[in-house]
Amino acid sequence: MQFNEYYHGRTGLTVGVKKILFSEKTPYQKVEVFETDTWGNLMTIDDMVMLSEKDEFVYHEMLVHPTMFAHPNPKRVLIIGGGDGGSAREVLKHPSVEHVDMVEIDEAVVRAAKEHLPEVGDFENPKLTVLYEDGIRFVEQVEEKYDVIIIDGSDPVGPAVDLFSDSFYKNCSRALSENGILSAQTESPWVASYHPAIKQLFKALESWFKVSSMYLAFIPLYPAGMWSLAYASKGIDPQDPEVLERVEKGTKNMAPSLKYYNTDIHKGAFALPQFVRDIIS
Amino acid sequence: MQFNEYYHGRTGLTVGVKKILFSEKTPYQKVEVFETDTWGNLMTIDDMVMLSEKDEFVYHEMLVHPTMFAHPNPKRVLIIGGGDGGSAREVLKHPSVEHVDMVEIDEAVVRAAKEHLPEVGDFENPKLTVLYEDGIRFVEQVEEKYDVIIIDGSDPVGPAVDLFSDSFYKNCSRALSENGILSAQTESPWVASYHPAIKQLFKALESWFKVSSMYLAFIPLYPAGMWSLAYASKGIDPQDPEVLERVEKGTKNMAPSLKYYNTDIHKGAFALPQFVRDIIS
Repeated sequence: MQFNEYYHGRTGLTVGVKKILFSEKTPYQKVEVFETDTWGNLMTIDDMVMLSEKDEFVYHEMLVHPTMFAHPNPKRVLIIGGGDGGSAREVLKHPSVEHVDMVEIDEAVVRAAKEHLPEVGDFENPKLTVLYEDGIRFVEQVEEKYDVIIIDGSDPVGPAVDLFSDSFYKNCSRALSENGILSAQTESPWVASYHPAIKQLFKALESWFKVSSMYLAFIPLYPAGMWSLAYASKGIDPQDPEVLERVEKGTKNMAPSLKYYNTDIHKGAFALPQFVRDIIS
Repeated sequence: MQFNEYYHGRTGLTVGVKKILFSEKTPYQKVEVFETDTWGNLMTIDDMVMLSEKDEFVYHEMLVHPTMFAHPNPKRVLIIGGGDGGSAREVLKHPSVEHVDMVEIDEAVVRAAKEHLPEVGDFENPKLTVLYEDGIRFVEQVEEKYDVIIIDGSDPVGPAVDLFSDSFYKNCSRALSENGILSAQTESPWVASYHPAIKQLFKALESWFKVSSMYLAFIPLYPAGMWSLAYASKGIDPQDPEVLERVEKGTKNMAPSLKYYNTDIHKGAFALPQFVRDIIS
């Protein structure tokens, strides 16, 4: 059996599957977990790859660490989405963190992850609170401030479509403390149908944040293997020498558990190929 | 009809194909060109993707320009392989170039490219000489020196296996002039079966060159979308301020024709994820 995800006409990914471990139509989406032949267990939502046990380190390290190290002292962190638990696990590696709220709309994602991706999450960590709510409404209403917000949603179809909207980033800015920083996943630059959503998201970041940049990561099971992410802050530049010093020290301490991220990657990931620049300019 | 290339168990790429345009078993390999639904025409060798009309700009710009701009005045260039003509086309964009020798073992590759990938090559350029010879033997015997050598071979199986050997790089070093620089394609870091060949190649570069580094590019139709390349020189560091100045000026002049490469990419491409560093260390 093969799992297929097409991203460019009839071009896409094909993965050898041994067994379907989980399959549920929830009120929001279709959540599935497959046992694959070489990637460990693989979670998909609406037939799109979310993560496999073997490659999830790239996405989670790259969504979380550039932002977490850029902040001088991140104590309170909000994760929108991220129900598989991988982003929270990376956030919780930072010793300054006191409290993490993870707002996941779909409890089935967490349930499937706990059962079939047990190495991905750190759900027993007492610093982590999981709330089953709509993240978009949550940032509209939340009163407390966060130092870092991580937006770990799915593709701009279905429940995640408003994670690419102007009002969502306005609310995120309001929910961030003075030095606040956010990161978000922003799709593959090779999927032309998402370009309008990507463009809209970066326009929103420009409106509501002093600093905003796209950066990239190599994710083998995502469309075309190229994934874009967003960094936005109320003032901290990700290439500030103080930030780079924190990255250098922090990655040394965290080294045995990092398989992708390092200081060179922190600097180099913000380099964008010409055709990618053109998407957001 | 779908073309499939598997790189990790039963995981790989699937591409929608409309028609087979060229298929020939040559003395060296199987060469095919497919008309695809969204990538233009696609050339494969022994069932492995070489290039498509839509994505070849990434590979050719990234194999050629970091090296060509690093050299202060590249006049004579040798290309080993590269029968599709894309590397020569990028080399010939540099105004200092006086002569390019392309040594392609398999005339069928050039024939197929001229007929079915007409936009890729610049075969009518009077500065270009195409020689149908074994590139490995060519660098063993050649007397003239080159300023730049571009090694644009296929995967380390079949006729390209010795392009990953110690003696080949020893001969390349001998065939390079005083300021000489080379680049080579060095496979996907996600294909574990090629790690020994990659390691061997970088060990050879370390033995025969003063400066050697791996760098990366996002290539959507190659295994996992992540491709590694090698830079090696007799002394010129690719991050030297003089080099970066040349890149900045040169890319401005070349701008309309560059879709991937720019100064940021020249700097950022040499950043390696932790697991990639581990392959060659």
